[in-house]
Amino acid sequence: MDFTTQNLVKTLVSNTVTPGVYLIGAGPGAADLITVRGARILALADIVFYDALIDLSMLEWCTGTKLVSVGKRCGAHSSSQHFINKQLVDAAKKHLVVVRLKGGDPLIFGRAQEEIDALEQANVHYEIVPGITTALAASAQLRQPPTTRELSRTLTLTTLPGRCSHADHKTTIYYMARDQLSDIAVALIAEGHSPITPVCLMESVSLPTERSFACTLDELQLGDVHHHFLDRQPVIVMVGEVYRKKLQILSPLIEPQIDPSVLRAAS
Amino acid sequence: MDFTTQNLVKTLVSNTVTPGVYLIGAGPGAADLITVRGARILALADIVFYDALIDLSMLEWCTGTKLVSVGKRCGAHSSSQHFINKQLVDAAKKHLVVVRLKGGDPLIFGRAQEEIDALEQANVHYEIVPGITTALAASAQLRQPPTTRELSRTLTLTTLPGRCSHADHKTTIYYMARDQLSDIAVALIAEGHSPITPVCLMESVSLPTERSFACTLDELQLGDVHHHFLDRQPVIVMVGEVYRKKLQILSPLIEPQIDPSVLRAAS
Repeated sequence: MDFTTQNLVKTLVSNTVTPGVYLIGAGPGAADLITVRGARILALADIVFYDALIDLSMLEWCTGTKLVSVGKRCGAHSSSQHFINKQLVDAAKKHLVVVRLKGGDPLIFGRAQEEIDALEQANVHYEIVPGITTALAASAQLRQPPTTRELSRTLTLTTLPGRCSHADHKTTIYYMARDQLSDIAVALIAEGHSPITPVCLMESVSLPTERSFACTLDELQLGDVHHHFLDRQPVIVMVGEVYRKKLQILSPLIEPQIDPSVLRAAS
Repeated sequence: MDFTTQNLVKTLVSNTVTPGVYLIGAGPGAADLITVRGARILALADIVFYDALIDLSMLEWCTGTKLVSVGKRCGAHSSSQHFINKQLVDAAKKHLVVVRLKGGDPLIFGRAQEEIDALEQANVHYEIVPGITTALAASAQLRQPPTTRELSRTLTLTTLPGRCSHADHKTTIYYMARDQLSDIAVALIAEGHSPITPVCLMESVSLPTERSFACTLDELQLGDVHHHFLDRQPVIVMVGEVYRKKLQILSPLIEPQIDPSVLRAAS
């Protein structure tokens, strides 16, 4: 932790919060993309339950706090979710300030409903601190608004390929998409999207390891592209006309096929 | 400004940033719902151009900074947008760190594309710092995830009534909605949504003046409800089955009609 962050933490703990459980959005990954409110409560927490996807630099906001990894990833089984719920309720009986730190925003595809239900049934005071959801962080990194007055007035966030998108120049951003890349392209083309609709893909948004690629829907449909991405890193997929310029700027997801005879002639 | 915030600002300025223009999301309104990165750059800025919708407590992050209100609200004319673009480019020639502070997230319905285009044409270094968009802050305040595994796997953010929503248990959140409340209800019912679909409305999200109401689509369609809301405050409208429980918890948007004979009998 650098000197500035240490000083920030010292200042953040010079205040108090209402005892209870805080569901806090960590944001996309970079430690300084959490909200000031989130950082302040982390600095004051007695115990923090964090997802496996949380970048460890985020935990530098915590001071003398008990840290518990709950090892949760996209697609975790409900038994582990049930266990997290129980841990939160139990911790609230023993500690003043309990934090459940979730990647992105706690309420966007974060299964927070189950934690909220458990806390309400146990009559525990809880609050929710929003976080930067990955779609917004990815847009900021790409420097591309997902909606523009000319091309799209509607943004859809989803985890489902198809069934949720119109072909009329809307923008759709898919979460937890790395295992359904070609399904997404097939569904969108079947729904009437042009095969040359631009697609941006981004891995490890806002972290030093962030990488981004661009392609068209027909390339995404045909390409065997899973091997592009690192194991256990989330991938977000952005589809819409607003991304057309990025086809020239970002790395192509599909390498252009080079005719072997051209290589022979050049050597 | 309280003591903690003063100390926070002192710590935040003990670091530097790359010179350039920063498009920063202020978040929904509460000063501590800006990101740590956003607060740090505000504390270091030489000049800050802020929207009329920004709550003034947010400007306490700025220290000795020149503050310029650009008076922008929903539906501003393009001439004023053109003038803002020019001011940003001019300021970048005179100052090291220029901030354009925008409500919510700078890229969600914020007309950032025009500012980005102007900065790129002028070859000015710029970065985008995401912010908590109002839909997420409103969800956190309501303590209701807009998507749940059972009821909705898709969230649509839009400024348009109709044309963007399916009736299959999706959630839709409308921005800049206060002047088109009945249009939204009419369009959704025409698209096949049940008239008893729950609706939550929230004004001044995250500020001390925040208020929320609930009703059903048919009530929103029939009711003359503009007078419920304060002048010049933005209203966000959330529609979907996930909000059903809120019908019992929030204030009703439409007051129940009381039969005058009941009042006479009670007096």
